Amino acid sequence: MKVAVFRKAHFNAAHRLHHPGWSEEKNEEVFGKCNNPNFHGHNYDLEVKVVGPIDPDTGYVFDMKILKDLIKHYVTDKFDHKNLNLDTDEFKNVNPTAENIAVVIWNILREKIDKKYDLTIRLYETERNFVEYNGN
Amino acid sequence: MKVAVFRKAHFNAAHRLHHPGWSEEKNEEVFGKCNNPNFHGHNYDLEVKVVGPIDPDTGYVFDMKILKDLIKHYVTDKFDHKNLNLDTDEFKNVNPTAENIAVVIWNILREKIDKKYDLTIRLYETERNFVEYNGN
Amino acid sequence: MKVAVFRKAHFNAAHRLHHPGWSEEKNEEVFGKCNNPNFHGHNYDLEVKVVGPIDPDTGYVFDMKILKDLIKHYVTDKFDHKNLNLDTDEFKNVNPTAENIAVVIWNILREKIDKKYDLTIRLYETERNFVEYNGN
Amino acid sequence: MKVAVFRKAHFNAAHRLHHPGWSEEKNEEVFGKCNNPNFHGHNYDLEVKVVGPIDPDTGYVFDMKILKDLIKHYVTDKFDHKNLNLDTDEFKNVNPTAENIAVVIWNILREKIDKKYDLTIRLYETERNFVEYNGN
Amino acid sequence: MKVAVFRKAHFNAAHRLHHPGWSEEKNEEVFGKCNNPNFHGHNYDLEVKVVGPIDPDTGYVFDMKILKDLIKHYVTDKFDHKNLNLDTDEFKNVNPTAENIAVVIWNILREKIDKKYDLTIRLYETERNFVEYNGN
Amino acid sequence: MKVAVFRKAHFNAAHRLHHPGWSEEKNEEVFGKCNNPNFHGHNYDLEVKVVGPIDPDTGYVFDMKILKDLIKHYVTDKFDHKNLNLDTDEFKNVNPTAENIAVVIWNILREKIDKKYDLTIRLYETERNFVEYNGN
Repeated sequence: MKVAVFRKAHFNAAHRLHHPGWSEEKNEEVFGKCNNPNFHGHNYDLEVKVVGPIDPDTGYVFDMKILKDLIKHYVTDKFDHKNLNLDTDEFKNVNPTAENIAVVIWNILREKIDKKYDLTIRLYETERNFVEYNGN
Repeated sequence: MKVAVFRKAHFNAAHRLHHPGWSEEKNEEVFGKCNNPNFHGHNYDLEVKVVGPIDPDTGYVFDMKILKDLIKHYVTDKFDHKNLNLDTDEFKNVNPTAENIAVVIWNILREKIDKKYDLTIRLYETERNFVEYNGN
Repeated sequence: MKVAVFRKAHFNAAHRLHHPGWSEEKNEEVFGKCNNPNFHGHNYDLEVKVVGPIDPDTGYVFDMKILKDLIKHYVTDKFDHKNLNLDTDEFKNVNPTAENIAVVIWNILREKIDKKYDLTIRLYETERNFVEYNGN
Repeated sequence: MKVAVFRKAHFNAAHRLHHPGWSEEKNEEVFGKCNNPNFHGHNYDLEVKVVGPIDPDTGYVFDMKILKDLIKHYVTDKFDHKNLNLDTDEFKNVNPTAENIAVVIWNILREKIDKKYDLTIRLYETERNFVEYNGN
Repeated sequence: MKVAVFRKAHFNAAHRLHHPGWSEEKNEEVFGKCNNPNFHGHNYDLEVKVVGPIDPDTGYVFDMKILKDLIKHYVTDKFDHKNLNLDTDEFKNVNPTAENIAVVIWNILREKIDKKYDLTIRLYETERNFVEYNGN
Repeated sequence: MKVAVFRKAHFNAAHRLHHPGWSEEKNEEVFGKCNNPNFHGHNYDLEVKVVGPIDPDTGYVFDMKILKDLIKHYVTDKFDHKNLNLDTDEFKNVNPTAENIAVVIWNILREKIDKKYDLTIRLYETERNFVEYNGN
């Protein structure tokens, strides 16, 4: 009997979509205004989903205070008020699309959360554009 | 390694729930005030979910500008500010319940999006009533 | 010492924007797709604001159950799942723009709420378009 | 061909997280401020998801008026404006965590909804903390 | 030239509406299920509005970090996860209606914010019921 | 008899809060992580409020299509997917705080909207931080 628990968090960051091996024309064609060399930015909303059995003593699947602290320590403190392209190691060589940011966050949290729990990341880049990744 | 990408869109339409083979009493009993012969209407919120691998060059699963344009061209331009019962071919002989609208939109977009991507439609008729369809 | 209290409600209706004294061309030019002769529709969100002193016995400005019932009885039961143009007396000769709907609702509720309270109506036609009227 | 239909509902309740077999220190350590002996409370948002085939006559998977009434009669009338620990049988011996509340609601509704439909409960304790249970 | 700045915060609390000088019947009649002697609870959303001139050096009306800290220190740390009737001095003899809670919070913050700034409190008890108080 | 009409719009931008006449230490102390030299970013939500009489012919205060186009042409096309500090003339010498952005947008739109209408700008920098300016 498994239950999913979700925790939301937020961070605000600048980014630029760019392929260093492509010409400016090709970058412009593919990424449009997201290719602005001076960057633009977003309020990213993050949902972390952890699935597992309910602990009979606590009634918790996963202590939300611990999950909140993991997200803060390993994800939002790292990305909040940062330029993803310039200020982080993770996106030095990875294009910071919503898809890639979700995979990076999943990889970070997967290390910190016991494998007996399933993990899914949902990331909202805007209210109308969002992505989800569960490691498969 | 697959990632889901979601795009939201909106349209405003009038509709009436009605079974032409039933008496007015039966229609009234089953559909209640949704059977009003002069129609009522909704702000429909549409979420389109496309699942596939991340393209290593772009970092995209599916270009959101292309997805946005597909939704606009084939769905919202067709249904927005329309009477679903009177102004569209799709609901001439299909009752425009939220369920049927979701299936119709799924069928329209399934034609336009490569089969290597999974497709799911979520449609909000109101904030409290919504449906989801993935072709299975 | 005055406090404002707000109550939200909802109704779903069909409507058409149209000026009977204008040509079809003029109506089309001014009202665009809102002029569709077969109607379209909206989920209207209504906020009713009542301002007055706090009753020292109850701690209420205005009993929310009474306000909720007034809105239901005189506004949403009248307009919900209706065609504003065809099914209501109020819009037989008044174009059902958001502005006019707000004024009509204000006039209805102003009759039912003691004049010692200020009254304001906010009406959302969509998430992005809304209006407000306070009788002045 | 199956479609999921969702219905949202709300209830407001007080609760306290507590393990009667633990010391006050252990309860405080595990449940923190949620262990306040005088209780605190939440606006719970409930989403009920029912999955099944579309009825060809009605175009419905499940009549939303019936689903709304089932939720009201068996869930929100029972829990709304209640103290979950003191006023309900369900949480006399069960810690009212979001996880356990979701399981309790699922068990209640599973009895009332034909087994040919899949059932999932999502429960928001706050905008940032929520859980989901589908019986597996 | 004045600009308004707003900061949102949240707290979760239990409360009971009750007039100690009234009979149980009168309390039940006026406050209905909000009179439950075992309490119920809410997720309160608080918006604090501060109006003043823009500081030409900072471009700020009021430093949001300072406002956030004032709200946390003097309001949400005091009320979050508390029983308003039993755990706070403010509501020992004041009925904790949304109106009275807004006035109490306004009085607390008015002491901490320079009188050259106008102050308004908006408090959401539920998504559908909220109040606003500006000291007049 | 005046009615207020509101139109929402969105733009995503990068910015940095910085006072060029201050030391790095002073900038860091005042602006904190918002002073990141590599910028961060936001999804800005903009609400434009226009107040005036209802036109008796159209039932409109102000044609929403025209207001939508004014906002797009003069505001969001200018700021969307831009670095406010580097890519715009308006913030070359003005610190792009939410307060200053709201004043800049108000000044831009005030030029384009007849003075017989009152104008107010509300700008959300995040869901929890927002500002409002009406020219007074």
